[in-house]
Amino acid sequence: MNFQSHNEGRVASRGGILAAADRIAAIVTRTPLLPVPATGGRVWIKAESLQLGGAFKLRGAYNRLAQIAPEQRAAGVVAFSSGNHAQGVARAAGLLGMPAVIVMPADAPTVKLDATKALGAQIVLYDRRSESRERIAAALAAERGAVLVPSFDDVDVIEGQGTVGLEIADQLGRAPAQIIVPCGGGGLSAGIALAVPDTQVVVAEPEGWDDMTRSLAAGEILEVAADAPATSCDALQTMRVADRTFTALATAGAHGAAASEAQIHAAMRYAFGLGLVVEPGGAAALAVWLAGTVPAKEGDTVIVCSGSNVDPQAYARIIG
Amino acid sequence: MNFQSHNEGRVASRGGILAAADRIAAIVTRTPLLPVPATGGRVWIKAESLQLGGAFKLRGAYNRLAQIAPEQRAAGVVAFSSGNHAQGVARAAGLLGMPAVIVMPADAPTVKLDATKALGAQIVLYDRRSESRERIAAALAAERGAVLVPSFDDVDVIEGQGTVGLEIADQLGRAPAQIIVPCGGGGLSAGIALAVPDTQVVVAEPEGWDDMTRSLAAGEILEVAADAPATSCDALQTMRVADRTFTALATAGAHGAAASEAQIHAAMRYAFGLGLVVEPGGAAALAVWLAGTVPAKEGDTVIVCSGSNVDPQAYARIIG
Repeated sequence: MNFQSHNEGRVASRGGILAAADRIAAIVTRTPLLPVPATGGRVWIKAESLQLGGAFKLRGAYNRLAQIAPEQRAAGVVAFSSGNHAQGVARAAGLLGMPAVIVMPADAPTVKLDATKALGAQIVLYDRRSESRERIAAALAAERGAVLVPSFDDVDVIEGQGTVGLEIADQLGRAPAQIIVPCGGGGLSAGIALAVPDTQVVVAEPEGWDDMTRSLAAGEILEVAADAPATSCDALQTMRVADRTFTALATAGAHGAAASEAQIHAAMRYAFGLGLVVEPGGAAALAVWLAGTVPAKEGDTVIVCSGSNVDPQAYARIIG
Repeated sequence: MNFQSHNEGRVASRGGILAAADRIAAIVTRTPLLPVPATGGRVWIKAESLQLGGAFKLRGAYNRLAQIAPEQRAAGVVAFSSGNHAQGVARAAGLLGMPAVIVMPADAPTVKLDATKALGAQIVLYDRRSESRERIAAALAAERGAVLVPSFDDVDVIEGQGTVGLEIADQLGRAPAQIIVPCGGGGLSAGIALAVPDTQVVVAEPEGWDDMTRSLAAGEILEVAADAPATSCDALQTMRVADRTFTALATAGAHGAAASEAQIHAAMRYAFGLGLVVEPGGAAALAVWLAGTVPAKEGDTVIVCSGSNVDPQAYARIIG
C-alpha cells in the first residue's frame, strides 16, 4: 500500500509550487481575480469557484497524480472526500488514463456524488457516523496496489493548491497585504502561505469548526469538538488538521477567523450579486470579510472563493 | 438637445474599437474566457456576466461618456433602459463625476432599479404600455442640456461593446470560428462582428423576440410583433433594431437563432453548474448552443454570457 506520498520527508516549498505551476498549466483554468465594487480597487475576489470541477482541488490532485510513475498508473488511485477532492482526483485520473475509486459519505451533496460518477470514477459509499473512511480507503488501496491520494496531508497536493497564491500575485502585479482563505484541512491555505511568503494569510472557518484558527492561536493542533454544531459547509468539516499544513501556516504567522451560518449565507448572497455561485464552505473567507471580523490592511486584500458545488435546491433556499 | 452622437456620420469600425479598448482599459474588468468541460477545449464561455455592474454595458457607456467634452460634463447625461444600460451609464457617470438621469420602466427587475439608484443616478419611472420612454428622455435631456446616451444605436457605444470581441481573440490566442451572442438592439453583437471580422457571429434571441434573426434572414429590418409572447429576457425586449447595428451584422454575414423559455432556463441551470449566475437574457446564446440549434464549427466556438442581473427570487425559482 502506498499510503504515504512518494516524496515523504520532503517539505512543501515555494520551489515545489513553481514546479507544480508548470506541471498543471495546460490542465487547470487560470481563474479570474475580480475587483470587489466600491472598495477603491483594494479588495479582490479570487474566483477559484470557476475552476474546472468547481473547486481548487484539481490543482493538487493533478500535481500529485502526474508524478505517479507510468508503470504504477494502471493500478490507479484511491481517495476519500465529501466531494470536491473526489471530483479533483476523478478528473485528474481521467486526464491521465488512470482508474479511480473514491470513498464518499452517503450524505454528501448529490451534486458532488453525481459529478464524481460522471467523471468515470467508481464510488464507494460509507456512513459518516459508524465507519472509518480512512480504513475503507486504505483497504481498497492495499487490495489494488493503488496509490492513496490524501486531500490535504500531502506535499504534492499542498504544492498544487499553492499555485492559487502564485496566480494571485501575478494577476495583481504585486504581493497583496493579506489573503483570506477558506480552510478545511489547510491544504489550500498552507500552499498559499508558502507561495506568497510576504503576505499575511488569514484562514476562515465555520463557527465550531474553527480548529485551525484555534490551533494557530494556541501554537498546537487542537481538534474539532465531538459535539460541533451542524454546518452547511460540508467542504470544511475536517476534524483535525495535519502537522504539515498547521506547521506551514504557523511558521508563516497565519491566523484565523470564524463565520456564523448567517454570515456564510449573507456572503453567498453577496457573491450572487456579483454573478458568482459560491458554495457555503467556499464563501467562508468572504463571510468573515463582509462581517468585519478581519479588518482591512494597508494594501490589497484578496478573498479566495474556493468552490461552487452546491445542490441547486439548497442554493435556491439560501438565495431566494 | 444632443440626441445624436457627437460623431454622427462616422461609422463604427475596428479602429474605433481598438481606441475604445485603450480608453476603457483601466475601468472595465477583463472578464474570463472559461473552458466548457468535456468539449475537448473547443467551446468557451466569455463570462461578461462578471463585468462590473453585472453586464457588458459599462464598456459602451464609459467609451461614450469619456468622449463628452469637459465643459459639457456638468449638464450630465440621460439614458433610458430596463436595467443593464442604466447601470452602465450610472457607473460611468459616477466615475467621470457627471450627474445621470435614467428613465426606467416601472416593472424593471427590482435588482436593476436598486443597483442603478445605489450608483447615484436619479431614476424616472414610466409605464411601458402607455408612455414613450424616448419622449420622456428627450424632454429631460432638452430641459437640462444633457447628453442622451442611447443603449445601442450609437457609434461609441457599439465600439465600446466591441472590445469584448478583441478580448476573446486575445485570450484565445486566435480568432474563434464562431461567437454566439445574446442580442437585444444589437450593440454587443455588431461591435463583436466589427472587432473580429474573420469570425462567424451568430445572434441569439428569445422566441418571438428574434427580430434581428429574422431581419438578417430577410435582408431588411423587421420589427417585433405587437403580440410577441411574454419572455423572462427583460434585457432583450427591443421592438426594433437600429440601422447601424443591423447593417454591421448583415455586412459581416451574421445570422441568428431563437431560444425557447425552457431552453433559456436550462442554460441558466447549466451555467449555475459552472459557478456562473447568468440572467435570462444573458443566457440566450448558451441556450441555443446547448439546444443544438447552432451547430459546432471546425475550430473554437465562444458563447457570450452577457449579464447576471436577475432578481434572487426569480433565480431561485428557475434553479431550484
